[in-house]
Order: sequence, then C-alpha cells, then structure tokens
Amino acid sequence: MPQNLTIIGLGLLGGSIGLAVKDRIRGCKIMGCAHREGSLKDALALGAIDSWTLDPAEAVREADFVVLCMPVSMIGTWIWKIAGHLKAGAVVTDVGSTKAAICYAGEAIQRPAHFVGSHPMAGSEKKGVAVARADLFDGATCIVTPTSRTDLGAADTVAAFWQTLGCRVVRHDPETHDRLVSLVSHLPHAVAAAVVAVQSDASLDLRGKGFLDSTRVAAGDAELWRDIFTDNRDNVVIAIDRLIAELATLSRTLRSNDPAALQQWLAQAARVRTSLDPRNADRQ
Amino acid sequence: MPQNLTIIGLGLLGGSIGLAVKDRIRGCKIMGCAHREGSLKDALALGAIDSWTLDPAEAVREADFVVLCMPVSMIGTWIWKIAGHLKAGAVVTDVGSTKAAICYAGEAIQRPAHFVGSHPMAGSEKKGVAVARADLFDGATCIVTPTSRTDLGAADTVAAFWQTLGCRVVRHDPETHDRLVSLVSHLPHAVAAAVVAVQSDASLDLRGKGFLDSTRVAAGDAELWRDIFTDNRDNVVIAIDRLIAELATLSRTLRSNDPAALQQWLAQAARVRTSLDPRNADRQ
Repeated sequence: MPQNLTIIGLGLLGGSIGLAVKDRIRGCKIMGCAHREGSLKDALALGAIDSWTLDPAEAVREADFVVLCMPVSMIGTWIWKIAGHLKAGAVVTDVGSTKAAICYAGEAIQRPAHFVGSHPMAGSEKKGVAVARADLFDGATCIVTPTSRTDLGAADTVAAFWQTLGCRVVRHDPETHDRLVSLVSHLPHAVAAAVVAVQSDASLDLRGKGFLDSTRVAAGDAELWRDIFTDNRDNVVIAIDRLIAELATLSRTLRSNDPAALQQWLAQAARVRTSLDPRNADRQ
Repeated sequence: MPQNLTIIGLGLLGGSIGLAVKDRIRGCKIMGCAHREGSLKDALALGAIDSWTLDPAEAVREADFVVLCMPVSMIGTWIWKIAGHLKAGAVVTDVGSTKAAICYAGEAIQRPAHFVGSHPMAGSEKKGVAVARADLFDGATCIVTPTSRTDLGAADTVAAFWQTLGCRVVRHDPETHDRLVSLVSHLPHAVAAAVVAVQSDASLDLRGKGFLDSTRVAAGDAELWRDIFTDNRDNVVIAIDRLIAELATLSRTLRSNDPAALQQWLAQAARVRTSLDPRNADRQ
C-alpha cells in the first residue's frame, strides 16, 4: 500500500480517492495537484489531501503511487508532465473511462517507473470535490488494463489499491475494455440523451420514476462525455448501430402485430435484467 | 369521497390503493374482487380490503366508486362484467397504462353510472399485492382522461380521489394521453430492453450504477408490457422510429468527428434532464 500518494485532479473521483485512502490506508500521506488552486484548497479543507502544489514535478517527486483523475482528453498531457519526475518504482494509474489511447500515452512512463491503466466504474451525474465521498468505490467494479508490456508487479499494486478502496477488480486489455464499456456504459449514456432529446414539454410533464431512472445518466457533464465518445468513437458507433438494428427489429415486430415474438423479446430482457440485481448476491 | 369502494384486481396497484384509502379516507369500506382467491386473501390479510367476492355483480352492487386494477388487456372484459350491476351515480375508473381503447370500452358503462379513465404513473418492476405500499402514489402524476362524452362531475370525482391518494392530477383526452406516454413511458421501456438485449456476458460483468439505473424498467413484467405495447402500437412505433432517427444522427455526428456538434447535443440533453429533478421543486 502506498505511503506517499499523489492525486492529480481533485474532482468527484480524485476527492473520493483521497477520502477513501484516509479511511483505509493508515499513515498514507496524500499530495494533491491540479492546474488550478480552487479545487485543491477545497480538497484540503475536506481532508481529502494533506498538502498540495501546482507543480507536477514537485507533486510526484516523493510519490510511490500516483492517480491521474482528470477528464480523459487531458490524461495524456499530464502523463507527459510527470513522466520525467517519477522516482524509481513509482506506479502511476488513472481513472479514465476509455483506455486504449491512454495506455498508449502511458508508455511515456518507463522503467523503473510504471504506468497501468484503471477504470473504476463509479461516479455520479454530479461533479466536483464537494460531492466526493469516502464510500464512492464500495462495491464498484474497477477494470485494470495491463498490456503485454506492463510490469505484472505494478498491475498487482494497482489492483490491490482499488480493492483496498472497496472495488471489485477485473482485468482486461485496453482494447477489450473499450469495446465492452462502449456497450455497457457509453451506449446507455447515448441512449438516455437521445430519449430526452425526443421528448416534448407535454410528454416531460408526465414523467414518472421510470423515465427519471432511465435517463438519469444524461444529466452528466457534456464535455466529459464528448471526450469519452470522441476517444472511443469507433466502438461507440458500432454499439449505437447495433442498438438501432435491435430497435428496428422491435419496430417491425410491433408493426407485424406478433404478440408472441414481442413477449419473448421482452421476457428475455426482463430475465437478464432481473438476474443482475443486486450485484452483491452474484458475488457470494 | 367514496364510502363504498370496490377494487377489482389486487396486485401492486390495487393493493396500494386499498392501503392508501385506509390511511386517508375515514370510514370507507373496501370490497375486493378478482378472478382468483389467492390475491384477495393476501389483500385481506394485509388490510388492503375489508371483504371480498369472486362475483363481479356482487362486488359492485353497493359501490359508489370502482377501480379496475388488472392488466390493460383485461380491463375491457371487466367493464362488461360489471356494467349491468352498478348503482345509480356509481363512478368507475381504471389504472391502465393505455387509455384510448379502454375509454372506448368504458362507454359500455352508461348513465346514471359513469366511466372515466385514469393512469396513475406509479408502479414498480416488482408485482403482486405483497409489495403494495400506502405511499405508492405520493407525488406521482395521475392522468385523468375524460372524453367529450364524459360527465364532468364524474371526472372531478375521479380527480379528487387520486389527489386524496397523493397524486398530482393532470387531464388529457385519451388519444393525447396515449401519444404522450408512448414517448415518456413506453419508449424508455422499449429502449431499456433493447440496451439489455445488445449486451454480452462480458459487458454485463462490467455493469455499473448507470447501466442498472438506465435499464431498471426492463425488469418489468413481460406480459403486462406486451399488452401495453400492443394496445398502443401505432404511437410506440412512431416513438421508436423517432428515437432511431435521433440515434442515426448521433452516429453520423460521431463518424464525421464533429466534437462541437456532439457537445452541443449532449449539453442540451443534460440541461433538459437536469431541469427535471426533483419534481417537487418544480411544483413549488
């Protein structure tokens, strides 16, 4: 477990990591770094970090573990900012929702330091360090994405870190990660936004709990999701096109008035969806 | 307010109406009726009804207010079963998620009795009287659907009943109702099921809270939703085709790599979705 942790980027995720580490890793000193003072001062006041600096080199000089917690489009830049300043054996990871491009950028961090990508699937449609929570990662799935060139010890260190924060850790190579999350995470976001987009004021006036649950993710930060979709564009396009094909089949089933086929399709989805809740039952 | 209420169909909605009326309408006697004994005995044990019968004529003979709480495909049949046995001035309503066909069937109930359609937008992916709750309707929207032939006093009686149970009541004609709920309720269900259908075991293993929220409604009862989609087929097909067009536009925006257009689209959805939560704030 790290004794000198550096968190770069103090938003919801970075702040929650700080609070969770304070709870769970005794004696760990936490340095914060970001491109602006505001979130660092707030994080210090919340007790998510012990000290802070705006200087990337200073931020990582003593660190044995570094977590990059900025939007995906900025992670590559920060990898370059810190790559020349890491001490031997330091392990760097990130929390980006896409992994192939970031892990490629991570190769700028070379032995005796290490980069291993991570994607803790925790978050909120709210943002900022003010909504950070020590239990944000409890029960969340975290995907750790070693490549064929990754040091196995470093990958184990990253996995152990997320487990300590409460995550269930699974490993995939970065390309597999990006394909799978395009289906299970990026597609639901695109669809929720599209469902909102086709409403009228009159239909929205009739919204119930089902509509609000189904579309909650669409309230997420537009810039952050623009970057995720752009970075994982090829996979997201494939996922959207698969969903369009599925909906076109449903539309045909309805128009041909085939209630047996309709029920079979609905029952299959209900069976799969019911089997997923709650996650904890699956793991016992 | 009714003094002799009859609830026909004792599932989640019928049972919750019984419990809510017990809480909120002093002295009201509640008769239960259904096509099988099991749910009636359970409802009696839960205190959702005071007595029960399997005989539709007996069930409604003394009733001043009747609520039909079975799946949409069976409401027309029950309207016929009770139509000849209502006392003068009795008001009948239902809880079906579609309204045009049901309100047409409701014309079998003639003066001096009255039928007025209702759709309380409350429910759950769970079913059965065992999950009934006295507060199920608190804060829910209920659409009351008078037609040009509806007695206005009867419509007011139905609206007042749902308000007493905690609903926000709005009125639409049945055809407008069916068009609006195809967008705000039936479409999210179809889409949630489609999102589940395109997943793989590997992608589902990475599910997070966003996926679970987005697809929760897909766990709903397949027969019930088959009937809703079948009954409201024309509107649901139009809604699905509109969503397909929206997703095709998004897919083109991604393929043409236009991050500004992408962000604008995402930001508009986020703005609309953010403005909807919480409902209570809107109403103050």
